[in-house]
Amino acid sequence: MEKLDMDVAGEMSEVTCVDFWGNGFGMRVRIALRELGVPFEYIEEDLRVRERSDLVRRMNPVHRSIPILIHHGRPVCGSINIVEYIDEVWGGEETTHLLPNNPADRADDARFWADFIDHKVFSTQTRFFTSKGEEKDAAKEELVQQLKRLEEVLGDNAFFSGDEFGFLDVVFIPFSSMFYGYEQHGAFDLEVECPKLTQWEKRCKQRESVSEVLPDGKEMQVIKNMIEYKDANKNTYLLGSGILIAVPVPKQHAASGKVIQSAIQKSLKEAEYSPSSLLSSLSLSLSLSLSLSSIRKHGPAGHTHKKCFPSKLTKSLN
Amino acid sequence: MEKLDMDVAGEMSEVTCVDFWGNGFGMRVRIALRELGVPFEYIEEDLRVRERSDLVRRMNPVHRSIPILIHHGRPVCGSINIVEYIDEVWGGEETTHLLPNNPADRADDARFWADFIDHKVFSTQTRFFTSKGEEKDAAKEELVQQLKRLEEVLGDNAFFSGDEFGFLDVVFIPFSSMFYGYEQHGAFDLEVECPKLTQWEKRCKQRESVSEVLPDGKEMQVIKNMIEYKDANKNTYLLGSGILIAVPVPKQHAASGKVIQSAIQKSLKEAEYSPSSLLSSLSLSLSLSLSLSSIRKHGPAGHTHKKCFPSKLTKSLN
Repeated sequence: MEKLDMDVAGEMSEVTCVDFWGNGFGMRVRIALRELGVPFEYIEEDLRVRERSDLVRRMNPVHRSIPILIHHGRPVCGSINIVEYIDEVWGGEETTHLLPNNPADRADDARFWADFIDHKVFSTQTRFFTSKGEEKDAAKEELVQQLKRLEEVLGDNAFFSGDEFGFLDVVFIPFSSMFYGYEQHGAFDLEVECPKLTQWEKRCKQRESVSEVLPDGKEMQVIKNMIEYKDANKNTYLLGSGILIAVPVPKQHAASGKVIQSAIQKSLKEAEYSPSSLLSSLSLSLSLSLSLSSIRKHGPAGHTHKKCFPSKLTKSLN
Repeated sequence: MEKLDMDVAGEMSEVTCVDFWGNGFGMRVRIALRELGVPFEYIEEDLRVRERSDLVRRMNPVHRSIPILIHHGRPVCGSINIVEYIDEVWGGEETTHLLPNNPADRADDARFWADFIDHKVFSTQTRFFTSKGEEKDAAKEELVQQLKRLEEVLGDNAFFSGDEFGFLDVVFIPFSSMFYGYEQHGAFDLEVECPKLTQWEKRCKQRESVSEVLPDGKEMQVIKNMIEYKDANKNTYLLGSGILIAVPVPKQHAASGKVIQSAIQKSLKEAEYSPSSLLSSLSLSLSLSLSLSSIRKHGPAGHTHKKCFPSKLTKSLN
């Protein structure tokens, strides 16, 4: 990948995170940076792959995906890859290491389950949110089983890493912003199914690194419901269960991403959300299972903006 | 994951690799172990997921996939994960480290491209081998472009890691056992398209660690052609372009895996290959683009067995 020209790099902070506020994969990066007390500049990126900025096109020409961490002008891409990089560069004896010290624990406890989350839980979650009837029931059952399995891994520990918040907590906690969505879409109580996991979620959210980054479940539910649809060609374009997938938006929906993004930001910021006009303009077939009035109630003006667009962090939060 | 009981572990070597000889993902592990001079016991596993041994079911209950590395009775799963583990445990100042020393190089040069290989090249390769007509042409074009991109990463270096054979070489070289398959299936000359990549392949194969592990292209082509088919339900069950995918074999094909495995082993070992009877017994619709006589010619008796079923390595090969 290209390294930024010195002129361009000179205008940037030492550490820059390029992301979209509702991107679950990117939340990992922003939490990890905060956990290790790394000051960084945040650049909000366009939701749509085809509308990605020149910066993204230059920094990640292969995938054009976000998040991207730019350190001294050099990009690191892929959320797990970035979190490992952050830990290798800024983790140390004086601060906390996110990954376990022991190679066997790194392999068996940390990376194995991170892969499970990214390649099992995420795909099941996507199927759950995009299916109906028996398929949805089966996906729901599978998802709950996978969550129960993760709960077994957690055991009676405070965090996945043991007593301390660590790598696997960073990797998985962004999914918790969809727990409310799970319950709404699947009509079940996660606390009943996975009591330890919901306790873990609460513990994580007591950390400033997490609470500063994660949108709440209701904010994510709005995004999910708006963008979870299939087009006439049966291709799925979704912000997928609250975790953004970088997919090309087809021509007929070229405006959707921008419209959605603007509308969400506008509504959450100004509490002037107008669902009917938005739905109409997007021509989407949606099933809004969430009372939109409750979004206005629970998504107060400025709240999301403050949380999701930090200009710069300069303090250690650990 | 379960740790082996002491009684059971006591019967095993300190380091055990559970794999199937034609598994490209597993080849990475076996090459890495040889590169770092780690003696290991090799246990050949059944090709079919549903017929996996109790050992696999206990060591990798989540995926039941291979390869599995068992070290002091504790399993490590996932080929990239295992290679990183091997490097962390046995790489050191006195031996070679497979991963770069610099965190930025680890992230940007090594892990990023490993992910590209596993999630882009591999899926394109699978589409290429399982499609026809325009879809096949498009997949071929995409595959060649991805190979050219990797060639750009290689540049004028001897290896992906620079002057020394390293992590990304370990990760990608198993794919070269399908280069012959690419050319046969796509009717093109890879050396013309990617001359540097084919030179790199030759350099890698001069290493004992690689030559001892990799089946040659013609052996892999036989497997590919035999198992690359779609069943009546349009589900694809393939050893996928030479890289094994762990898929459940449907009931109506329950015997296929064993039959195929036995037949290949028998044919390559004894040079008594009887394609017509095998095809008949498998009821597969196959297009064998390879002259079977040339397999007998190029796959001499005992050769594959020796290469693929090492009982125990005790020497450093680096």
